[in-house]
Amino acid sequence: MSPPLRVLKMRIAIDAMGGDYAPVEQVRGAIDAAKFDNIEVILVGKKDEINRELANYNVKGLPISVVNAPDVITMDEHPAFALRKKRGASIAVAMRLVKERAVDGVVALGNTGAAMTAALIGLGRIPGIERPAIGCPLPNNNGFSLLVDAGANANCKPHHLLYFGIMGTIYMQMTVGIHNPSVGLVNIGEEPSKGSEFYVASYKMLKESNLNFIGNIEGRDVPTGKVDVIVCDGFVGNIILKFAEGMGATIFDMLKKEIKDKPIAKLGGALVKPSLKSIKTRLDPSEYGGVSLLGVDGVCVIGHGNSKAKAVRNAIRVACQSAEKDIVGMIKDYISKMNVGDGKGDK
Amino acid sequence: MSPPLRVLKMRIAIDAMGGDYAPVEQVRGAIDAAKFDNIEVILVGKKDEINRELANYNVKGLPISVVNAPDVITMDEHPAFALRKKRGASIAVAMRLVKERAVDGVVALGNTGAAMTAALIGLGRIPGIERPAIGCPLPNNNGFSLLVDAGANANCKPHHLLYFGIMGTIYMQMTVGIHNPSVGLVNIGEEPSKGSEFYVASYKMLKESNLNFIGNIEGRDVPTGKVDVIVCDGFVGNIILKFAEGMGATIFDMLKKEIKDKPIAKLGGALVKPSLKSIKTRLDPSEYGGVSLLGVDGVCVIGHGNSKAKAVRNAIRVACQSAEKDIVGMIKDYISKMNVGDGKGDK
Repeated sequence: MSPPLRVLKMRIAIDAMGGDYAPVEQVRGAIDAAKFDNIEVILVGKKDEINRELANYNVKGLPISVVNAPDVITMDEHPAFALRKKRGASIAVAMRLVKERAVDGVVALGNTGAAMTAALIGLGRIPGIERPAIGCPLPNNNGFSLLVDAGANANCKPHHLLYFGIMGTIYMQMTVGIHNPSVGLVNIGEEPSKGSEFYVASYKMLKESNLNFIGNIEGRDVPTGKVDVIVCDGFVGNIILKFAEGMGATIFDMLKKEIKDKPIAKLGGALVKPSLKSIKTRLDPSEYGGVSLLGVDGVCVIGHGNSKAKAVRNAIRVACQSAEKDIVGMIKDYISKMNVGDGKGDK
Repeated sequence: MSPPLRVLKMRIAIDAMGGDYAPVEQVRGAIDAAKFDNIEVILVGKKDEINRELANYNVKGLPISVVNAPDVITMDEHPAFALRKKRGASIAVAMRLVKERAVDGVVALGNTGAAMTAALIGLGRIPGIERPAIGCPLPNNNGFSLLVDAGANANCKPHHLLYFGIMGTIYMQMTVGIHNPSVGLVNIGEEPSKGSEFYVASYKMLKESNLNFIGNIEGRDVPTGKVDVIVCDGFVGNIILKFAEGMGATIFDMLKKEIKDKPIAKLGGALVKPSLKSIKTRLDPSEYGGVSLLGVDGVCVIGHGNSKAKAVRNAIRVACQSAEKDIVGMIKDYISKMNVGDGKGDK
């Protein structure tokens, strides 16, 4: 009897040397993705180290392979400088695999700056996109919204925010299946006149676009799922994202302290613990397996440096999904049509 | 026998016509402050309306009085324009009472823009302070940090942030009694080079000051109490504050949904409810009774528009405390010495 036919979804490369637990957790996450998600995973890094780790598991028949990369970029190196010097860095080699279409996407953990720089050098930008941005899922009571830009560009121009809205819209359409995702601009009030000139101009550009732009949203609307795509510059996005992390943790610390000397509340806390844990998990961005670098010419997912196997597997799944749904192709298509429209003068 | 001697702490005026529940909740809050906190309260607004409300309570012997103000500024009016037109607006009259030293401080609810404009017109700035700022207590596991600016100035220059740090430091020294409050600048990374030119320059000015500046802090450090004074421009401050509001609510909604169909978790939720409620209360900025407008020449506390009696009473107490500790005088003193220092060339 012939072995059962395995339909592999996609091939995803992972930089096995980045992150706090490399390559242990990468290997474990890769095995899980290969075993349970039907994804072919290519581990990129120091071959001997990875193989030694792989030897701890039974990976016979699993779609896992190793591509050697002798160099590693450390957290304290300047990304652009290090990447120019170390052509054999695992992250650079992984990007080249995407560029050469040897794989359908790449996952990198840890140093976001290094991953972004490697993606810009290795994959390049989608034509028409000046500023690739980080799309980060923000959980809410009904699923998640996508925050774009979650930290790639501290300084932006209004048209960058328009493109963030476009890329976020395509991402939510394709991966979540929302027909016409709503888009909101993070600002200090709802009126179009709110905020600096930059915000007034950004509002105008988003309003005049084909996006389902519902207008400015305030900080309080960010975590409630009022809009599907939350547009902001990378400075505000970074602050929001990290504040959410810190605040989730603070609330749970407060609860711990609050029930400490109260037997009844403590019992209640024990009974409600699984539910609280589930919320904590939902609030933890790393559980989503990573953020997507949108606007580069290839699928690139960046995970937390402290990712363990589960988060690694999730990141691989996010990359796989983006590749399957051809987010990159859809963005390319949209942008190229926009530019044609501009040229022909549609007004 | 003579009646017991009442030592009144301070005289605080409250705009009785602003906010969603005016003047009902203002009157109730004022009575509580007068009764339990030994504060003399002056209700400012339409005399007949306030007296009609006061008639529902036994206020005999309480240090409560009414100052008539025939006009009211509504939420939809442009503050500066309305204030110029309506000299008898309750908020304008209340500010004049502070200016004339008839009272030691003022509380306004609701329209923050109107309150700020009225304070700028009615009280003026402390000499040397270009930009008064909103100081808002952010709760954490050990008390609170003060966020300055929490929304007054969307566009700032580096030296404005230095003054926010100074005013926040004096506030925390005087009201909380921290000897040398730590100050942090909200940024996207800890290194002095992080963020735009504006942030690099702000970092430098704070670093070179006499403040206990510990450097940049990230979003995740904002809610943990890592520093006593959190410095940022009003745009970032507004987003953080409102995001915190929204996120607190979202987490509790998530928990409700999470335990809905789970009997054991539901029981646990019921037992832990008082603790959860206490946290929710601590996270609710309105419970602190309002934010302080720092840098104007008089004590001005701004409360939520939806404040009920308890929040009104708290706001009156915050104003009383600021007046007792002479925050305004301390800021004046510090700034005047700074300027003298500058003139003499102390470098």
